[in-house]
Amino acid sequence: MRIDIITVVPGLLEGPFSHSILKRAEDKGLAMVRVHNLRDYASGKQKQVDDYAFGGGAGMVMMIEPIAKCLEALKSERDYDEVIYMTPDGETFNQKMANELSLKGNLIILCGHYKGVDERVREKFITREISIGDFVLSGGELAAAVVADAVIRLIPGVLNDETSALTDSFQDGLLAPPVYTRPADYKGMKVPEVLLSGHQAKIEAWRFDASVRRTKERRPDLLEGKDF
Amino acid sequence: MRIDIITVVPGLLEGPFSHSILKRAEDKGLAMVRVHNLRDYASGKQKQVDDYAFGGGAGMVMMIEPIAKCLEALKSERDYDEVIYMTPDGETFNQKMANELSLKGNLIILCGHYKGVDERVREKFITREISIGDFVLSGGELAAAVVADAVIRLIPGVLNDETSALTDSFQDGLLAPPVYTRPADYKGMKVPEVLLSGHQAKIEAWRFDASVRRTKERRPDLLEGKDF
Repeated sequence: MRIDIITVVPGLLEGPFSHSILKRAEDKGLAMVRVHNLRDYASGKQKQVDDYAFGGGAGMVMMIEPIAKCLEALKSERDYDEVIYMTPDGETFNQKMANELSLKGNLIILCGHYKGVDERVREKFITREISIGDFVLSGGELAAAVVADAVIRLIPGVLNDETSALTDSFQDGLLAPPVYTRPADYKGMKVPEVLLSGHQAKIEAWRFDASVRRTKERRPDLLEGKDF
Repeated sequence: MRIDIITVVPGLLEGPFSHSILKRAEDKGLAMVRVHNLRDYASGKQKQVDDYAFGGGAGMVMMIEPIAKCLEALKSERDYDEVIYMTPDGETFNQKMANELSLKGNLIILCGHYKGVDERVREKFITREISIGDFVLSGGELAAAVVADAVIRLIPGVLNDETSALTDSFQDGLLAPPVYTRPADYKGMKVPEVLLSGHQAKIEAWRFDASVRRTKERRPDLLEGKDF
Protein backbone atom coordinates (compact mmCIF):
# COMPACT_ATOMS: atom_id res chain seq x y z
CA MET A 1 0.00 0.00 0.00
CA ARG A 2 1.09 3.51 -0.79
CA ILE A 3 -0.32 6.68 0.80
CA ASP A 4 0.52 10.12 -0.60
CA ILE A 5 -0.30 12.95 1.78
CA ILE A 6 -0.61 16.51 0.45
CA THR A 7 -0.12 19.32 2.95
CA VAL A 8 0.96 22.93 3.35
CA VAL A 9 2.70 22.10 6.66
CA PRO A 10 4.79 18.98 5.98
CA GLY A 11 6.67 19.52 9.24
CA LEU A 12 3.56 18.49 11.16
CA LEU A 13 3.98 15.00 9.73
CA GLU A 14 7.66 14.56 10.57
CA GLY A 15 7.23 12.29 13.55
CA PRO A 16 4.48 9.80 12.87
CA PHE A 17 5.96 8.00 9.88
CA SER A 18 9.54 7.70 11.05
CA HIS A 19 8.94 5.82 14.29
CA SER A 20 7.39 2.70 15.74
CA ILE A 21 4.91 0.66 13.75
CA LEU A 22 4.63 2.89 10.68
CA LYS A 23 8.40 3.00 10.34
CA ARG A 24 8.51 -0.79 10.60
CA ALA A 25 5.80 -1.14 7.93
CA GLU A 26 7.90 0.99 5.60
CA ASP A 27 11.11 -0.89 6.42
CA LYS A 28 9.38 -4.19 5.68
CA GLY A 29 8.14 -2.83 2.35
CA LEU A 30 4.50 -3.30 3.39
CA ALA A 31 3.47 0.34 3.28
CA MET A 32 4.93 3.53 1.94
CA VAL A 33 3.91 7.01 3.00
CA ARG A 34 5.09 10.06 1.06
CA VAL A 35 4.42 13.60 2.23
CA HIS A 36 4.14 16.29 -0.46
CA ASN A 37 4.56 19.98 0.18
CA LEU A 38 1.77 21.74 -1.67
CA ARG A 39 3.95 24.82 -1.98
CA ASP A 40 6.13 22.92 -4.48
CA TYR A 41 3.17 23.08 -6.88
CA ALA A 42 2.41 26.76 -6.40
CA SER A 43 3.28 29.27 -9.08
CA GLY A 44 4.76 32.75 -8.84
CA LYS A 45 7.56 34.02 -6.68
CA GLN A 46 5.36 34.00 -3.58
CA LYS A 47 4.53 30.28 -3.94
CA GLN A 48 1.03 31.21 -2.86
CA VAL A 49 -1.21 28.31 -1.80
CA ASP A 50 -4.02 30.16 -0.04
CA ASP A 51 -5.99 33.36 -0.37
CA TYR A 52 -8.82 35.29 1.29
CA ALA A 53 -12.30 33.79 1.15
CA PHE A 54 -14.71 35.26 -1.39
CA GLY A 55 -17.41 37.03 0.56
CA GLY A 56 -15.02 37.96 3.37
CA GLY A 57 -14.70 36.58 6.86
CA ALA A 58 -11.93 35.14 8.99
CA GLY A 59 -9.45 32.52 7.82
CA MET A 60 -7.63 31.69 4.60
CA VAL A 61 -8.82 29.23 1.94
CA MET A 62 -6.54 26.83 0.05
CA MET A 63 -6.54 27.56 -3.71
CA ILE A 64 -7.58 25.02 -6.33
CA GLU A 65 -4.70 25.50 -8.75
CA PRO A 66 -1.73 24.18 -6.74
CA ILE A 67 -3.87 21.26 -5.57
CA ALA A 68 -4.87 20.46 -9.16
CA LYS A 69 -1.21 20.49 -10.25
CA CYS A 70 -0.11 18.27 -7.40
CA LEU A 71 -2.90 15.76 -8.05
CA GLU A 72 -2.13 15.70 -11.77
CA ALA A 73 1.54 15.02 -11.07
CA LEU A 74 0.73 12.13 -8.73
CA LYS A 75 -1.94 10.64 -10.99
CA SER A 76 0.41 10.70 -13.96
CA GLU A 77 2.68 8.31 -12.08
CA ARG A 78 0.17 5.72 -10.86
CA ASP A 79 -3.51 4.99 -10.43
CA TYR A 80 -5.16 5.82 -7.14
CA ASP A 81 -8.10 4.06 -5.52
CA GLU A 82 -9.28 7.13 -3.64
CA VAL A 83 -8.50 10.82 -3.32
CA ILE A 84 -9.47 11.49 0.28
CA TYR A 85 -10.07 14.89 1.85
CA MET A 86 -9.86 15.15 5.64
CA THR A 87 -12.66 17.44 6.84
CA PRO A 88 -14.85 17.70 9.95
CA ASP A 89 -17.98 17.38 7.79
CA GLY A 90 -16.84 14.12 6.17
CA GLU A 91 -17.96 10.56 6.87
CA THR A 92 -16.90 9.60 10.40
CA PHE A 93 -13.86 7.33 10.41
CA ASN A 94 -14.19 4.04 12.28
CA GLN A 95 -12.59 0.61 12.48
CA LYS A 96 -14.76 -0.79 9.70
CA MET A 97 -13.54 1.93 7.35
CA ALA A 98 -9.95 1.29 8.48
CA ASN A 99 -10.35 -2.39 7.58
CA GLU A 100 -11.80 -1.48 4.21
CA LEU A 101 -9.08 1.07 3.36
CA SER A 102 -6.35 -1.39 4.42
CA LEU A 103 -7.27 -3.47 1.35
CA LYS A 104 -6.61 -0.61 -1.09
CA GLY A 105 -3.48 -0.13 -3.18
CA ASN A 106 -2.78 3.59 -3.57
CA LEU A 107 -4.43 6.41 -1.67
CA ILE A 108 -4.06 10.17 -1.76
CA ILE A 109 -4.97 12.13 1.36
CA LEU A 110 -5.37 15.89 1.00
CA CYS A 111 -5.06 17.84 4.24
CA GLY A 112 -6.99 21.07 4.59
CA HIS A 113 -5.44 23.82 6.66
CA TYR A 114 -6.76 27.22 7.74
CA LYS A 115 -10.46 27.41 6.69
CA GLY A 116 -10.12 24.42 4.32
CA VAL A 117 -9.95 24.04 0.56
CA ASP A 118 -11.90 25.82 -2.15
CA GLU A 119 -15.20 23.95 -2.52
CA ARG A 120 -14.46 23.27 -6.21
CA VAL A 121 -11.54 21.03 -5.18
CA ARG A 122 -14.03 18.85 -3.34
CA GLU A 123 -16.46 18.79 -6.25
CA LYS A 124 -13.87 18.07 -8.92
CA PHE A 125 -11.17 15.89 -7.40
CA ILE A 126 -12.20 14.32 -4.11
CA THR A 127 -13.68 10.81 -4.11
CA ARG A 128 -14.13 10.45 -0.38
CA GLU A 129 -14.39 12.87 2.55
CA ILE A 130 -13.40 11.58 5.98
CA SER A 131 -13.67 13.09 9.45
CA ILE A 132 -11.96 11.55 12.45
CA GLY A 133 -14.56 13.02 14.82
CA ASP A 134 -16.81 15.90 15.82
CA PHE A 135 -14.07 18.37 16.61
CA VAL A 136 -11.98 20.88 14.71
CA LEU A 137 -8.21 20.72 14.28
CA SER A 138 -5.71 23.27 13.00
CA GLY A 139 -5.50 21.21 9.85
CA GLY A 140 -6.05 17.80 8.37
CA GLU A 141 -2.48 16.67 8.99
CA LEU A 142 -3.00 14.96 12.34
CA ALA A 143 -6.23 13.47 11.04
CA ALA A 144 -4.39 12.08 8.00
CA ALA A 145 -1.73 10.61 10.28
CA VAL A 146 -4.46 8.99 12.39
CA VAL A 147 -6.08 7.40 9.34
CA ALA A 148 -2.73 6.23 7.95
CA ASP A 149 -1.79 4.69 11.30
CA ALA A 150 -5.13 2.95 11.84
CA VAL A 151 -5.06 1.56 8.30
CA ILE A 152 -1.41 0.55 7.95
CA ARG A 153 -1.28 -1.39 11.21
CA LEU A 154 -4.00 -3.68 9.84
CA ILE A 155 -1.94 -4.78 6.84
CA PRO A 156 -0.91 -8.39 7.47
CA GLY A 157 2.69 -8.57 8.66
CA VAL A 158 2.91 -5.01 9.97
CA LEU A 159 2.28 -5.93 13.61
CA ASN A 160 4.73 -8.43 15.00
CA ASP A 161 2.03 -10.76 16.14
CA GLU A 162 -0.94 -10.81 13.84
CA THR A 163 -3.39 -11.80 16.50
CA SER A 164 -2.59 -8.53 18.20
CA ALA A 165 -4.89 -6.39 16.03
CA LEU A 166 -7.63 -9.02 16.12
CA THR A 167 -8.00 -8.70 19.87
CA ASP A 168 -8.23 -4.90 19.78
CA SER A 169 -11.32 -2.95 20.67
CA PHE A 170 -13.98 -2.79 17.90
CA GLN A 171 -12.62 -5.65 15.78
CA ASP A 172 -15.19 -7.99 17.29
CA GLY A 173 -17.66 -5.23 18.13
CA LEU A 174 -16.59 -5.22 21.77
CA LEU A 175 -14.24 -3.11 23.82
CA ALA A 176 -11.02 -4.85 24.84
CA PRO A 177 -10.85 -6.42 28.34
CA PRO A 178 -8.53 -4.99 31.03
CA VAL A 179 -4.89 -6.04 30.80
CA TYR A 180 -2.32 -6.54 33.54
CA THR A 181 1.39 -7.17 33.79
CA ARG A 182 3.99 -7.53 36.54
CA PRO A 183 4.08 -7.02 39.45
CA ALA A 184 1.17 -9.25 40.47
CA ASP A 185 0.80 -7.15 43.61
CA TYR A 186 1.40 -3.40 43.38
CA LYS A 187 1.07 -1.78 46.81
CA GLY A 188 -1.82 -4.10 47.62
CA MET A 189 -3.51 -3.77 44.21
CA LYS A 190 -3.69 -7.32 42.92
CA VAL A 191 -4.10 -8.82 39.48
CA PRO A 192 -7.32 -10.91 39.15
CA GLU A 193 -6.39 -14.43 40.27
CA VAL A 194 -7.73 -16.20 37.21
CA LEU A 195 -5.10 -14.48 35.04
CA LEU A 196 -2.37 -16.10 37.15
CA SER A 197 -4.02 -19.54 37.09
CA GLY A 198 -2.54 -20.79 33.83
CA HIS A 199 -5.98 -22.21 33.01
CA GLN A 200 -6.36 -20.91 29.46
CA ALA A 201 -10.06 -21.70 28.99
CA LYS A 202 -10.97 -19.91 32.22
CA ILE A 203 -8.79 -16.96 31.23
CA GLU A 204 -10.53 -16.65 27.87
CA ALA A 205 -13.93 -16.86 29.52
CA TRP A 206 -12.95 -14.15 32.03
CA ARG A 207 -11.70 -11.91 29.24
CA PHE A 208 -14.84 -12.35 27.18
CA ASP A 209 -17.04 -11.56 30.20
CA ALA A 210 -14.89 -8.54 31.04
CA SER A 211 -15.16 -7.30 27.44
CA VAL A 212 -18.92 -7.61 27.41
CA ARG A 213 -19.21 -5.98 30.85
CA ARG A 214 -17.00 -3.07 29.85
CA THR A 215 -18.90 -2.59 26.59
CA LYS A 216 -22.25 -2.63 28.44
CA GLU A 217 -21.00 -0.06 30.92
CA ARG A 218 -19.24 2.27 28.53
CA ARG A 219 -20.66 1.76 25.06
CA PRO A 220 -24.02 0.01 25.18
CA ASP A 221 -24.63 1.40 21.66
CA LEU A 222 -22.09 -1.11 20.29
CA LEU A 223 -24.20 -4.00 21.57
CA GLU A 224 -27.47 -3.01 19.90
CA GLY A 225 -28.87 -5.96 17.99
CA LYS A 226 -26.38 -8.35 19.61
CA ASP A 227 -27.22 -11.01 22.12
CA PHE A 228 -24.67 -11.16 24.96
CA MET B 1 -2.21 26.21 29.77
CA ARG B 2 0.35 23.45 30.16
CA ILE B 3 0.03 19.91 28.77
CA ASP B 4 2.47 17.18 29.81
CA ILE B 5 2.37 14.16 27.53
CA ILE B 6 3.83 10.84 28.73
CA THR B 7 4.86 8.35 26.04
CA VAL B 8 7.20 5.48 25.27
CA VAL B 9 7.69 6.79 21.70
CA PRO B 10 8.44 10.52 22.06
CA GLY B 11 9.62 10.64 18.44
CA LEU B 12 6.02 10.23 17.28
CA LEU B 13 5.30 13.65 18.75
CA GLU B 14 8.20 15.50 17.16
CA GLY B 15 6.26 17.27 14.43
CA PRO B 16 2.95 18.47 15.83
CA PHE B 17 4.20 20.84 18.48
CA SER B 18 7.02 22.52 16.60
CA HIS B 19 5.00 23.85 13.65
CA SER B 20 2.06 26.01 12.73
CA ILE B 21 -0.54 26.96 15.29
CA LEU B 22 0.77 24.95 18.24
CA LYS B 23 4.26 26.40 17.77
CA ARG B 24 2.75 29.89 17.65
CA ALA B 25 0.79 29.23 20.84
CA GLU B 26 4.00 28.24 22.58
CA ASP B 27 5.92 31.21 21.17
CA LYS B 28 3.22 33.57 22.42
CA GLY B 29 3.37 31.97 25.87
CA LEU B 30 -0.27 30.89 25.66
CA ALA B 31 0.31 27.15 25.83
CA MET B 32 3.18 24.88 26.68
CA VAL B 33 3.45 21.23 25.71
CA ARG B 34 6.13 19.01 27.21
CA VAL B 35 6.72 15.45 26.04
CA HIS B 36 8.15 13.01 28.61
CA ASN B 37 9.87 9.77 27.71
CA LEU B 38 8.51 7.11 30.05
CA ARG B 39 11.77 5.21 29.72
CA ASP B 40 13.48 7.94 31.79
CA TYR B 41 11.42 6.72 34.74
CA ALA B 42 12.12 3.00 34.29
CA SER B 43 14.49 1.18 36.61
CA GLY B 44 17.13 -1.42 35.90
CA LYS B 45 19.68 -1.54 33.13
CA GLN B 46 17.04 -2.53 30.58
CA LYS B 47 14.89 0.55 31.30
CA GLN B 48 11.93 -1.77 30.94
CA VAL B 49 8.54 -0.07 30.52
CA ASP B 50 6.42 -2.99 29.34
CA ASP B 51 6.03 -6.70 29.95
CA TYR B 52 3.93 -9.67 28.83
CA ALA B 53 0.26 -9.70 29.80
CA PHE B 54 -0.74 -11.91 32.71
CA GLY B 55 -2.83 -14.72 31.31
CA GLY B 56 -0.95 -14.74 28.01
CA GLY B 57 -1.95 -13.48 24.60
CA ALA B 58 -0.56 -11.14 21.99
CA GLY B 59 0.88 -7.71 22.73
CA MET B 60 2.82 -6.05 25.52
CA VAL B 61 1.35 -4.17 28.49
CA MET B 62 2.80 -0.97 29.95
CA MET B 63 3.92 -1.46 33.57
CA ILE B 64 2.52 0.56 36.46
CA GLU B 65 5.81 1.39 38.18
CA PRO B 66 7.48 3.72 35.62
CA ILE B 67 4.14 5.48 35.10
CA ALA B 68 3.70 5.96 38.84
CA LYS B 69 7.19 7.46 39.11
CA CYS B 70 6.67 9.81 36.20
CA LEU B 71 3.32 11.00 37.55
CA GLU B 72 4.78 11.54 41.02
CA ALA B 73 7.62 13.61 39.58
CA LEU B 74 5.22 15.81 37.60
CA LYS B 75 2.72 16.20 40.43
CA SER B 76 5.49 17.24 42.85
CA GLU B 77 6.14 20.24 40.60
CA ARG B 78 2.60 21.54 40.08
CA ASP B 79 -1.07 20.71 40.50
CA TYR B 80 -2.90 19.13 37.61
CA ASP B 81 -6.59 19.49 36.75
CA GLU B 82 -6.79 16.12 35.01
CA VAL B 83 -4.69 13.03 34.37
CA ILE B 84 -6.04 11.86 31.03
CA TYR B 85 -5.53 8.43 29.48
CA MET B 86 -6.05 8.10 25.73
CA THR B 87 -7.88 4.83 25.07
CA PRO B 88 -10.40 3.56 22.50
CA ASP B 89 -12.84 2.68 25.30
CA GLY B 90 -12.80 6.19 26.78
CA GLU B 91 -15.38 8.96 26.48
CA THR B 92 -15.60 10.12 22.86
CA PHE B 93 -13.81 13.42 22.28
CA ASN B 94 -15.84 16.21 20.70
CA GLN B 95 -15.85 19.99 20.31
CA LYS B 96 -17.74 20.49 23.56
CA MET B 97 -15.04 18.60 25.46
CA ALA B 98 -12.37 20.59 23.62
CA ASN B 99 -14.01 23.85 24.74
CA GLU B 100 -14.19 22.58 28.31
CA LEU B 101 -10.57 21.40 28.42
CA SER B 102 -9.37 24.70 26.92
CA LEU B 103 -10.37 26.37 30.21
CA LYS B 104 -8.10 24.13 32.32
CA GLY B 105 -4.68 25.06 33.65
CA ASN B 106 -2.48 21.96 33.71
CA LEU B 107 -3.19 18.62 32.09
CA ILE B 108 -1.32 15.34 31.93
CA ILE B 109 -2.02 13.04 28.98
CA LEU B 110 -0.77 9.45 29.25
CA CYS B 111 -0.41 7.64 25.94
CA GLY B 112 -0.90 3.90 25.88
CA HIS B 113 1.16 1.92 23.39
CA TYR B 114 1.12 -1.77 22.46
CA LYS B 115 -1.87 -3.37 24.28
CA GLY B 116 -2.25 -0.40 26.65
CA VAL B 117 -1.47 0.19 30.31
CA ASP B 118 -1.88 -2.11 33.29
CA GLU B 119 -5.50 -1.71 34.44
CA ARG B 120 -4.34 -0.62 37.90
CA VAL B 121 -2.85 2.56 36.38
CA ARG B 122 -6.35 3.46 35.22
CA GLU B 123 -7.91 2.67 38.59
CA LYS B 124 -5.32 4.50 40.66
CA PHE B 125 -4.13 7.51 38.70
CA ILE B 126 -6.39 8.37 35.78
CA THR B 127 -9.11 10.99 36.28
CA ARG B 128 -10.48 10.96 32.74
CA GLU B 129 -10.36 8.51 29.82
CA ILE B 130 -10.73 9.92 26.33
CA SER B 131 -11.10 8.27 22.92
CA ILE B 132 -10.87 10.23 19.69
CA GLY B 133 -13.08 7.72 17.88
CA ASP B 134 -14.14 4.13 17.26
CA PHE B 135 -10.88 2.95 15.79
CA VAL B 136 -7.58 1.59 17.08
CA LEU B 137 -4.21 3.28 16.70
CA SER B 138 -0.68 2.01 17.29
CA GLY B 139 -0.65 4.12 20.41
CA GLY B 140 -2.19 7.10 22.13
CA GLU B 141 0.40 9.54 20.79
CA LEU B 142 -1.47 10.75 17.72
CA ALA B 143 -4.67 10.85 19.75
CA ALA B 144 -2.95 13.00 22.39
CA ALA B 145 -1.67 15.33 19.66
CA VAL B 146 -5.20 15.61 18.26
CA VAL B 147 -6.63 16.54 21.67
CA ALA B 148 -3.82 19.03 22.35
CA ASP B 149 -4.32 20.66 18.94
CA ALA B 150 -8.12 20.87 19.23
CA VAL B 151 -7.85 22.34 22.74
CA ILE B 152 -4.96 24.75 22.33
CA ARG B 153 -6.32 26.43 19.20
CA LEU B 154 -9.37 27.48 21.23
CA ILE B 155 -7.34 29.45 23.77
CA PRO B 156 -8.01 33.14 23.10
CA GLY B 157 -5.14 34.72 21.17
CA VAL B 158 -3.78 31.50 19.68
CA LEU B 159 -5.49 31.93 16.31
CA ASN B 160 -4.62 35.16 14.55
CA ASP B 161 -8.23 36.12 14.13
CA GLU B 162 -10.40 35.06 17.01
CA THR B 163 -13.53 34.84 14.97
CA SER B 164 -11.87 32.08 13.00
CA ALA B 165 -12.57 29.31 15.53
CA LEU B 166 -16.10 30.59 16.16
CA THR B 167 -17.11 29.98 12.56
CA ASP B 168 -15.76 26.41 12.52
CA SER B 169 -17.92 23.33 12.24
CA PHE B 170 -19.60 22.25 15.51
CA GLN B 171 -19.08 25.53 17.41
CA ASP B 172 -22.67 26.54 16.61
CA GLY B 173 -23.94 22.98 16.20
CA LEU B 174 -23.77 23.23 12.39
CA LEU B 175 -21.25 22.16 9.77
CA ALA B 176 -19.32 25.00 8.17
CA PRO B 177 -20.53 26.35 4.80
CA PRO B 178 -18.48 25.87 1.61
CA VAL B 179 -15.62 28.31 1.11
CA TYR B 180 -14.15 29.68 -2.12
CA THR B 181 -11.13 31.72 -3.11
CA ARG B 182 -9.55 33.00 -6.34
CA PRO B 183 -9.91 32.44 -9.23
CA ALA B 184 -13.62 33.24 -9.48
CA ASP B 185 -13.77 31.04 -12.58
CA TYR B 186 -11.66 27.88 -12.64
CA LYS B 187 -12.04 26.11 -15.98
CA GLY B 188 -15.70 27.02 -16.04
CA MET B 189 -16.34 26.19 -12.38
CA LYS B 190 -17.67 29.43 -10.92
CA VAL B 191 -17.92 30.78 -7.41
CA PRO B 192 -21.55 31.41 -6.29
CA GLU B 193 -22.38 34.95 -7.39
CA VAL B 194 -23.64 36.16 -4.05
CA LEU B 195 -20.14 35.74 -2.60
CA LEU B 196 -18.83 38.23 -5.14
CA SER B 197 -21.67 40.71 -4.58
CA GLY B 198 -20.14 42.58 -1.66
CA HIS B 199 -23.59 42.54 -0.04
CA GLN B 200 -22.63 41.35 3.45
CA ALA B 201 -26.14 40.61 4.74
CA LYS B 202 -26.92 38.46 1.71
CA ILE B 203 -23.59 36.67 2.05
CA GLU B 204 -24.27 35.85 5.70
CA ALA B 205 -27.75 34.59 4.83
CA TRP B 206 -26.33 32.41 2.04
CA ARG B 207 -23.70 30.99 4.39
CA PHE B 208 -26.23 30.20 7.08
CA ASP B 209 -28.52 28.47 4.60
CA ALA B 210 -25.57 26.53 3.15
CA SER B 211 -24.54 25.45 6.67
CA VAL B 212 -28.01 24.22 7.51
CA ARG B 213 -28.35 22.45 4.15
CA ARG B 214 -25.00 20.73 4.50
CA THR B 215 -25.79 19.67 8.06
CA LYS B 216 -29.17 18.28 7.00
CA GLU B 217 -27.55 16.29 4.19
CA ARG B 218 -24.52 14.99 6.03
CA ARG B 219 -25.24 15.05 9.73
CA PRO B 220 -28.96 15.27 10.45
CA ASP B 221 -28.19 13.92 13.93
CA LEU B 222 -26.63 17.30 14.83
CA LEU B 223 -29.97 19.02 14.21
CA GLU B 224 -32.11 16.86 16.49
CA GLY B 225 -34.11 19.08 18.80
CA LYS B 226 -33.21 22.19 16.80
CA ASP B 227 -35.59 24.16 14.65
CA PHE B 228 -34.01 25.24 11.37
